[in-house]
Amino acid sequence: MNAVAAKFNTRAEAANSLLCVGLDPDLERMPERFRAETFPLWTFCRGIIDQTAPYAAAFKPNTAFFEARGAVGATELDMICEYLHDEYPDHMVICDAKRADIGNTNRGYATAAFDELQCDAITLHPYLGREAMEPFLKRADKACIVLCRTSNAGAGEFQDLLCDGKPLWQIVAEKVTREWDRDGNCMLVVGATYPEEMRVLRALAPHTVFLVPGIGTQGGDIAAVVAAGLDSSGKGLILSVSRDILYSSEPAGAARGFRDAINTARSVVRKDVHAAR
Amino acid sequence: MNAVAAKFNTRAEAANSLLCVGLDPDLERMPERFRAETFPLWTFCRGIIDQTAPYAAAFKPNTAFFEARGAVGATELDMICEYLHDEYPDHMVICDAKRADIGNTNRGYATAAFDELQCDAITLHPYLGREAMEPFLKRADKACIVLCRTSNAGAGEFQDLLCDGKPLWQIVAEKVTREWDRDGNCMLVVGATYPEEMRVLRALAPHTVFLVPGIGTQGGDIAAVVAAGLDSSGKGLILSVSRDILYSSEPAGAARGFRDAINTARSVVRKDVHAAR
Repeated sequence: MNAVAAKFNTRAEAANSLLCVGLDPDLERMPERFRAETFPLWTFCRGIIDQTAPYAAAFKPNTAFFEARGAVGATELDMICEYLHDEYPDHMVICDAKRADIGNTNRGYATAAFDELQCDAITLHPYLGREAMEPFLKRADKACIVLCRTSNAGAGEFQDLLCDGKPLWQIVAEKVTREWDRDGNCMLVVGATYPEEMRVLRALAPHTVFLVPGIGTQGGDIAAVVAAGLDSSGKGLILSVSRDILYSSEPAGAARGFRDAINTARSVVRKDVHAAR
Repeated sequence: MNAVAAKFNTRAEAANSLLCVGLDPDLERMPERFRAETFPLWTFCRGIIDQTAPYAAAFKPNTAFFEARGAVGATELDMICEYLHDEYPDHMVICDAKRADIGNTNRGYATAAFDELQCDAITLHPYLGREAMEPFLKRADKACIVLCRTSNAGAGEFQDLLCDGKPLWQIVAEKVTREWDRDGNCMLVVGATYPEEMRVLRALAPHTVFLVPGIGTQGGDIAAVVAAGLDSSGKGLILSVSRDILYSSEPAGAARGFRDAINTARSVVRKDVHAAR
């Protein structure tokens, strides 16, 4: 098993949690006291990390929220990733950057996410194909999480196109799991808002880890997603929640609540499996 | 006509040039004297800009090269974009970032490229669909340049898939030009390495501007590309060259050479048009 998948599994077992806390810090939505800080996104996220770490197996900073603030934001993202690396070395850290360029150029993005920020994984667009993605894929010690079925309402515009009789999202999953994943370092993004597609994807990629955004504000149903996507080991899902934890009046309680709701759904699935035997 | 397309056309006519200089600054490849600078990418790019501006209609900084350097790189990119905005206000500036996330998150990227960096345009991945891209598309004063046919050798892995009898790159072009482009602010990326595809795309999108990477190092043939892609006004192409100008011993001469080679190809096409009349 790839080192990143193993790291996630170890932490998921230790914390009895498949929860990933998405770090999408929005100045307008965080409590007013942070706005006077020199590095408000860092101070805000550090607090969220410390409060939610006991209930989380992974953290997922989204680069867009930092990029909007130029060099200050880049410094804030760097501080957050360094803090996670130093203080929470057992938690998986996903750089949610959704990058992809031609090969020569991807080296810059791979260096940024994997070496400068020391993240375990990065999210990637599939459109340019495997050949372009080599600078990411050759990092056998890291994870490449490729967009397959995204959580947004309009995801189907291209992803549902039938190509050779199959929807594009299915072809992306087949190519990534069968052709890109030589080193066992590929994972897929599968939105919580599409449990039917997730069921198909789990059947065709039984051992692939899915990063699952879309729980909470976006409306993904935890029970449906867990039933559709859990693998045979009772894991295989990184369930990400951002806004419903970050802007809760009590982030620790919100994270614990999501962890517990996920575990309740997992126990129902396991009972079903036992009952079917 | 959209303000950005008009800006490009005006500059292209004034400079008699369709050349875009791609700013892909690589510390390892630039002359040694720059490496001792505090902001080497900025110093290097400023020199390139000043030397090549007379022959160029556009500049295209690629964010990957800056992102690899964290906060320092963010500062360098900011300095370059501010310099272009202040000193070369007639040149189109393209933020070559290849971004795309769900709608809520794209606001951060749109703010970064359009407001913080004050670029005229940004390059975007199509995979998440129009609904997700609203934060970019609603900026009628800016341009959204959507990846259609990329220049890399492995571009066909997904882009050539036949969907309803058409290759995916063609469906992307049709959807972007017919459904996304309500405000006339959409353009397409079409690699110089695929002139046959460019000919098809020009026929189906006669008035859409194409950003064309892949000339020079990547092997795109200027004459073939210009013949395939020029629009009826003799423009419609932003022809981008990066490494062959940046790491030339004489960047001004290299830029002038590419401008002239492009214009030679344009004059041949025009003669063909006249001869056909």
